[in-house]
Amino acid sequence: MGRPSVKEQLVGRTLGVWIERGFEGASVNDLVAAAGVPKGSFYNHFSSKERFAVEHVNRYVPTLALESLADAPGPFVDAVREHFARLVALRRDGRMEFGCLLGTFSNSATEAYPDLREAVRTSFGQWIDVLTAVLVRARDAGELSTDRAPADVAAALVDGFEGAVARSRATGALDPLDVFLAVTLEELTR
Amino acid sequence: MGRPSVKEQLVGRTLGVWIERGFEGASVNDLVAAAGVPKGSFYNHFSSKERFAVEHVNRYVPTLALESLADAPGPFVDAVREHFARLVALRRDGRMEFGCLLGTFSNSATEAYPDLREAVRTSFGQWIDVLTAVLVRARDAGELSTDRAPADVAAALVDGFEGAVARSRATGALDPLDVFLAVTLEELTR
Repeated sequence: MGRPSVKEQLVGRTLGVWIERGFEGASVNDLVAAAGVPKGSFYNHFSSKERFAVEHVNRYVPTLALESLADAPGPFVDAVREHFARLVALRRDGRMEFGCLLGTFSNSATEAYPDLREAVRTSFGQWIDVLTAVLVRARDAGELSTDRAPADVAAALVDGFEGAVARSRATGALDPLDVFLAVTLEELTR
Repeated sequence: MGRPSVKEQLVGRTLGVWIERGFEGASVNDLVAAAGVPKGSFYNHFSSKERFAVEHVNRYVPTLALESLADAPGPFVDAVREHFARLVALRRDGRMEFGCLLGTFSNSATEAYPDLREAVRTSFGQWIDVLTAVLVRARDAGELSTDRAPADVAAALVDGFEGAVARSRATGALDPLDVFLAVTLEELTR
């Protein structure tokens, strides 16, 4: 294995800085320090902090494992539940530091950063679209008793998860995520 | 009416700056500029940016109108629904700029600010406690068909609302809040 490229070092070692400090709060100095690269290298690879953040968002979506959710065999309700259970487990292991990049950037990027907002908006949209498709299959397979529109249920699940992640950060405890799994997720996918 | 004191100007004119830029992102310079007061005045009234943020959090909780929620006559389920409908209406009017101070600080204050984290944690706790008490009354009055613990339902409602607020910011649209009212709130208070 060769050494990771400077670009890979920058992206690979800075997720925690973004989640910890937010978009406005994380400076380029903070980011290059965490990555262990000289500041000059940053601008060789990214034209701005915003472009770097967009790169992070684009790489974050695959960590949601949307393809395996989309390809899951039935029961489809179980696939939705396992999807969120996995995301909670990642936080329980400490691998996500209780945060979510999309929620952090939603709350900490001003309107002065339209490309970042667009990347976050698109990512939420991809996530909700895949969940919607799986919930449609669940409904068509007779697995759901609710008659709510699958797109609305999908959006409500993502928002419930994000709110629980935020309160977990504030409280330093994971019980909001446990409540999300036990109450919101269960009730909305009855 | 006399002129507002410098302290009142500082607190009264800076909520939008916090919600827009987050705790780390809003500098004391940003805050005094928005308040229209000299920077020196800031430190006459607050020993640090963190103490100023704690003052904001403490003044934010009354805007949630928890007393009127706690004192509402039955049906208690209606009181809970009207509580959240009012919070959404405040955002629809633009008076809250799509944000929530508690959610913003949850996502943007690092662990280096324990007093702020404690203020946010306490505020979420007060909110959830009042909702729990009203949901207990709803359950005892036979208004709920769910057998979920009221404290868990209360927490799930707050988190669902906060997640919807965050996604509203990211998308620049209020439909996440409408979905929260129509789906999460309705399903969890059946």
